[in-house]
Amino acid sequence: MPDVLGKFSEEIKGKKAMFLLVIATTDVSLIPGITIAGATEELTHFTPPADAEFLILGKCKVINAIPVTPSGLPTPAVISRASLSLLKINALVVDAGSKIKPKIPYVDLGGEPGRDIRKGSLKREVAERIVERGTILGEELSNDYELLIIGESIPAGTTTAMATLVGLGYDAMDKVSSASPDNPKPLKRKIVEEALRELPSDLMGRLSKLSDPMLLGVAGISLGFKGKVLLAGGTQMVAASAVIKELGREKLKDVGIGTTRWIVEDKSSDIIDLARQTGVKLSFVNLDFSRSRFDGLRAYERGFVKEGVGAGGLSLFATLQGISEERILSKVEEIYENLLKEAK
Amino acid sequence: MPDVLGKFSEEIKGKKAMFLLVIATTDVSLIPGITIAGATEELTHFTPPADAEFLILGKCKVINAIPVTPSGLPTPAVISRASLSLLKINALVVDAGSKIKPKIPYVDLGGEPGRDIRKGSLKREVAERIVERGTILGEELSNDYELLIIGESIPAGTTTAMATLVGLGYDAMDKVSSASPDNPKPLKRKIVEEALRELPSDLMGRLSKLSDPMLLGVAGISLGFKGKVLLAGGTQMVAASAVIKELGREKLKDVGIGTTRWIVEDKSSDIIDLARQTGVKLSFVNLDFSRSRFDGLRAYERGFVKEGVGAGGLSLFATLQGISEERILSKVEEIYENLLKEAK
Repeated sequence: MPDVLGKFSEEIKGKKAMFLLVIATTDVSLIPGITIAGATEELTHFTPPADAEFLILGKCKVINAIPVTPSGLPTPAVISRASLSLLKINALVVDAGSKIKPKIPYVDLGGEPGRDIRKGSLKREVAERIVERGTILGEELSNDYELLIIGESIPAGTTTAMATLVGLGYDAMDKVSSASPDNPKPLKRKIVEEALRELPSDLMGRLSKLSDPMLLGVAGISLGFKGKVLLAGGTQMVAASAVIKELGREKLKDVGIGTTRWIVEDKSSDIIDLARQTGVKLSFVNLDFSRSRFDGLRAYERGFVKEGVGAGGLSLFATLQGISEERILSKVEEIYENLLKEAK
Repeated sequence: MPDVLGKFSEEIKGKKAMFLLVIATTDVSLIPGITIAGATEELTHFTPPADAEFLILGKCKVINAIPVTPSGLPTPAVISRASLSLLKINALVVDAGSKIKPKIPYVDLGGEPGRDIRKGSLKREVAERIVERGTILGEELSNDYELLIIGESIPAGTTTAMATLVGLGYDAMDKVSSASPDNPKPLKRKIVEEALRELPSDLMGRLSKLSDPMLLGVAGISLGFKGKVLLAGGTQMVAASAVIKELGREKLKDVGIGTTRWIVEDKSSDIIDLARQTGVKLSFVNLDFSRSRFDGLRAYERGFVKEGVGAGGLSLFATLQGISEERILSKVEEIYENLLKEAK
């Protein structure tokens, strides 16, 4: 019973699906201590293109290393790649605004990287352009697919997600998750409070100031797509749902979030409350890495990484297509083992 | 009986298909008299993004005008858009190297615009990158589609096509077509002969010097795609087939060209001979615009425009899916009429 709010897994089961990975960066990830998605602050900007390359090719080109946290924990892209290879569905990378571009084909939405939200993330025309072109892309994919699964990779994305949710009036402070078991909540709160201090009164003004290119791209694509949309991610995808609701309220009924058990059970955040507030459906996949052969994967059970690169939604959809959790774990281990071999 | 060489229309009938429009520019189109795809030489670089925007949106954004030749003849994108809207299949724009980018989402292959082939079109690493990323894109689309229909928009593309074919050893001089009924053969021949004067001995060296980003992108995508490939275009697509053959000979059996009757019947070029030389299959669509209500469309029967933006292949595939030529013409006229209204 993976459905927590609504019955989205029943709605999407068996649907003809495609996966999009939407990548972006903001300068929020350069703030020391805000994210563990990169060995140094500067390297966080390499994480989205590295995730994209790993997802598609099984190896990275923008960096000469496996995409892991500083302590050596593997990117959730191993789960996404495992799920995609079992699902055998098409996947494309979409760049909504990354400082470093992946060295593989990607769909360009004409976006730009976000700046520090304390000064303002995006110029208004850039924010509008990302939504507009995202919408066109969603429309373009509507003929052949009944379901779009959308994942994300953006370092410090939970901070911009929290800023966006609070800026749109939700009770979201301290409720977003983190890739670290030590969610740096005081720091996130301080940044978001500062960003909220001077706020434009209109919707696009607020989104331009507080949001990130990924959230706007995901919202645009979802609004343009004519079928169901599975937002594959954690609390960031609640923020994406909130943007979708603001820009096209009637679309939300076709939207659900698919995430991991590690996010739903996370004590440092509250995705269920956030999803309930926005009204988006919420489901999760019951992956259990506690019996994995690899310590790097068992660490997921200790609150590390948790989600990202569409891992939760893709593996959830795989289980709905009849692929067992055991088979997914076995494929994840196979991919992770190859990663470790290549790193030697 | 649209099959001229081979029986490709039988092979692809009923297949699950997607359309890609590959756009690019070279500075060859800046040579006075070489092309009519633009009101001035400089404006030829706006034609590919304008074609892309018109195909997807039904209007142009990079230019404030309908995409027509200087004498007011409509872009073949009206045929492509009509066919797509009847086929209801997904379409994406791929930028292999355009000077002006379309203001819609497009897949970026990391290419660059070509220069004048007399000096050398592309740096070798750029040419290799376009092929490599095109191949990845083709692979990415292989799960859900059995057939990829690939069209092109590149001004002066027949000149780079002729240079490529001759440079690869084919008897192609004076055999490529033109968007004008007065094919500027002496000028094309002069440029190609000059470009051929100093030629690297290896394959990628030759392609870098003589080819254009579109040909390399189309070849890469075709090589990566696991199903059938319908090259939707005229003599340029023979050059693309020749590149495919050089880079992966075994793929050619899954490749066919779909073009218009106007290209096959063109007295100023010889696509049948060129296709026979390369060994690619060739089929055409029997659109007849002689009874059209619009002079701009009847001009196609007088040798203007003829092909482009995937017009021939897309309308051929539409007829294979049971859509009559009359219905296509009627849709083309509807789209063209709206164009004329908006231009007023």
